[in-house]
Amino acid sequence: MLIAKIYVTLKPGVLDAQGDTVKSALETLGFEGLADVRVGKFMVLTLNSRTKEQATAHVEEMCRRLLANPVIEDYRFEIEGAEG
Amino acid sequence: MLIAKIYVTLKPGVLDAQGDTVKSALETLGFEGLADVRVGKFMVLTLNSRTKEQATAHVEEMCRRLLANPVIEDYRFEIEGAEG
Repeated sequence: MLIAKIYVTLKPGVLDAQGDTVKSALETLGFEGLADVRVGKFMVLTLNSRTKEQATAHVEEMCRRLLANPVIEDYRFEIEGAEG
Repeated sequence: MLIAKIYVTLKPGVLDAQGDTVKSALETLGFEGLADVRVGKFMVLTLNSRTKEQATAHVEEMCRRLLANPVIEDYRFEIEGAEG
């Protein structure tokens, strides 16, 4: 079993309404000194792929086709676990 | 400036409807060999804290009070960047 950890974040410069809302909520709770809050997605996929190369190719295609919106989002991922 | 990277995930055993939906969508697109998909949140906070110890204490409290639901979610974070 291989594990793919995928991080999807808004590109720099894209307005992050969810992040701004979280920042306001934290400030309302009394937290000071927050310069910026950005919110993204974190996905963990458990794959039956045989090799890390195969898993990397599959996950790259999943990100491009469904998991991230390439117009406004960046993604990166890492593959962990034992092959076979 | 210090950067806090926060990962919020559902606890093991908690039903992940969003993850199941993503898994079905990937299978509909023809991706095979997916054993499990879990979806969580990934937050990046930019902090004006002076030291990493201070930042760690603040972020720990933010997670407990707002960013994660401790009943169903786990969180972990790392603090990066230069102090001062």
